[in-house]
Amino acid sequence: MTSRRDRQIGIFDSGVGGLTVMAAIAKLMPHERLVYLGDTARLPYGTKSAETVSRYAVQATRALMRFDVKLVVVACNTASAVALPVLAAALAPVPVIGVVEPGARAAVAASRNGHIAIIATEGTVRGGAYVRAVHALKPNATVVQKACPLFVALAEEGWTEGDVPERVTERYVRELFESADVKPDTLVLGCTHFPVFAKQIAKAAGSGVTLVDSAQTTATEVAQLLQAQNLKRQGAGEAPLFLATDAAERFARVGSLFLGRPIDNAQVELVDLAP
Amino acid sequence: MTSRRDRQIGIFDSGVGGLTVMAAIAKLMPHERLVYLGDTARLPYGTKSAETVSRYAVQATRALMRFDVKLVVVACNTASAVALPVLAAALAPVPVIGVVEPGARAAVAASRNGHIAIIATEGTVRGGAYVRAVHALKPNATVVQKACPLFVALAEEGWTEGDVPERVTERYVRELFESADVKPDTLVLGCTHFPVFAKQIAKAAGSGVTLVDSAQTTATEVAQLLQAQNLKRQGAGEAPLFLATDAAERFARVGSLFLGRPIDNAQVELVDLAP
Repeated sequence: MTSRRDRQIGIFDSGVGGLTVMAAIAKLMPHERLVYLGDTARLPYGTKSAETVSRYAVQATRALMRFDVKLVVVACNTASAVALPVLAAALAPVPVIGVVEPGARAAVAASRNGHIAIIATEGTVRGGAYVRAVHALKPNATVVQKACPLFVALAEEGWTEGDVPERVTERYVRELFESADVKPDTLVLGCTHFPVFAKQIAKAAGSGVTLVDSAQTTATEVAQLLQAQNLKRQGAGEAPLFLATDAAERFARVGSLFLGRPIDNAQVELVDLAP
Repeated sequence: MTSRRDRQIGIFDSGVGGLTVMAAIAKLMPHERLVYLGDTARLPYGTKSAETVSRYAVQATRALMRFDVKLVVVACNTASAVALPVLAAALAPVPVIGVVEPGARAAVAASRNGHIAIIATEGTVRGGAYVRAVHALKPNATVVQKACPLFVALAEEGWTEGDVPERVTERYVRELFESADVKPDTLVLGCTHFPVFAKQIAKAAGSGVTLVDSAQTTATEVAQLLQAQNLKRQGAGEAPLFLATDAAERFARVGSLFLGRPIDNAQVELVDLAP
C-alpha cells in the first residue's frame, strides 16, 4: 500500500485551463505525483448555474478519488467560487484547495490603493466569491468585477495573438474600469484561461496595474499544506496522468497551450462519470 | 386524449440557437403547438465527440417525448450532423427532421457554379455530414468547410455589432475561401448561431455569394411532412413552451436575440435529464 506521502495530488478543472495551475505545482514541487482531470464533456462551467456546477464538480472529483489522492486542487475558478464547501464536504477527510482564496490573498497583498478589479467567467462573477474573499481579508477594499467569456472561446480557438484578442481585451478592460470610481491598481485574472492574454490585458490596463494570476499563489498554498501536514513526497518525479471526460485529441491539442509543453494524445485517458 | 394532429411539435437544440428554427416554424405554421428544449446544462455540443453528442441528444429528446409530440425537429446542426440516425431509431415511430439535409438541399438549389462553402461548429465539420449531404444531391459539387466556434461565443455574449465580430468574420471567411480553388458562390450557415452575423458574413464574402440559412428550409420541410402525413393542426395558435436543462434566466435573455422577440423568465421551465 502506498504511504500517504507518496499518493498523488489530484487536480480538477472543467477543461484544460487548470493545466496552468498544474504547471505551477509541477514546477514548485517536482517530486510530487500529479493526476489531472478535465471535465471536457460538460465544459464550460462558467455559463452554468451554481447547482449544476456543484453537481458536476462532485461527480468529477469522485473520479479523482479513485486514485486515492492525498489532496484535491480545484483549479477551476468557477467551481472554486460556487462549489468549494460542497466539494470539501463530499471529499472529507481529503483536504481541498481552491483558487479563489489564494487569488484574493495575492490581490490584497499586491494592492496599494485598495481598489481591486476582477475578471472572470459569468458564473464566478454572479456568485461573488472573489468579492467576498477580498472583503474577508480587507473589509474596506473596493472591488469591481466583469465577466469576460470571450477570452475562454478565443483561448480554445488558439487566437491568442493579433487584432481580435487585442480589440476584445480593450473593450473588456475599458468597460471594467468604467465601472470603477477610482482606477484599480490590481487586476485578478479570475479564470485559468485568462493568463494567455496577460500581455494584452496588461497593455489595455495601462501602467501602474499589477496582474494577479492565482496559479502561482495556489501552488504556494499547496506546498504549505503539504509541509504542514507532513505530506511532502521525496524521490524522483513521475510523468503526470491526464484524464478527460471527452475528446482526448482536443484535450491534448488545446491543453498543450496551457501546460506550456506538448501533451501526447496517448497520454490522455477517457473516463466516464456516469453515476 | 389529444388527437395526433393536435399534438405538439418538439424542437430540440443544445441551447438557444435553435430558436431561429422555431421562429421560422411558428411563422410558417401559426396553428401548430410548439415545445422547445434547450440542453443548456451541457452546451455547447459543437466541441464534443460524436458519441457524447449522441448520448446527450437521446437523453434530451426523451424529455420532449414526455409531451407526446407528433414530430421532433433537431434544430441543432451538430446533433443533426452526428446523431440523426441514432435519434431516429430512439424516437421511432415519431418522425425526426434534422437541419443538415434541408440546408444541403437549399445550397445545391442556390449554387450555379457547383462550388459550395460550409461554416459550422468543430463537431459538424469533423463529422462531414454537410459534405456528404451535398454530394448525395450533387456528386460533382466541390465543398469546402471551416469550423467557426468564435461565432457561438460572440452571439452568446451579444457582441453582434462592431469591429470585433467584423474582424472575426473577415478572418474566418478569408481562411475559408483560401482553402477553395474556385470561389464558392454559396455559403451555408451551418450553425443556428450564425445567422445573427449574416450581414458581416455577406460583406466579407463579397458579391455573388448567396448565404443559405437552414431555418427557413427546415420549416418548409416540416410543413411538407405534416401535409403528407395528414398531421396539420387547425385552430388557434398557442404560446409555445420553453424547456431548458439549466439557467432559465440566461435562456430567456440570450434566447430573445435568436427568437426575435422577448422571452419572459417565467416562461422557461427547468427540466432534469438525469437518467
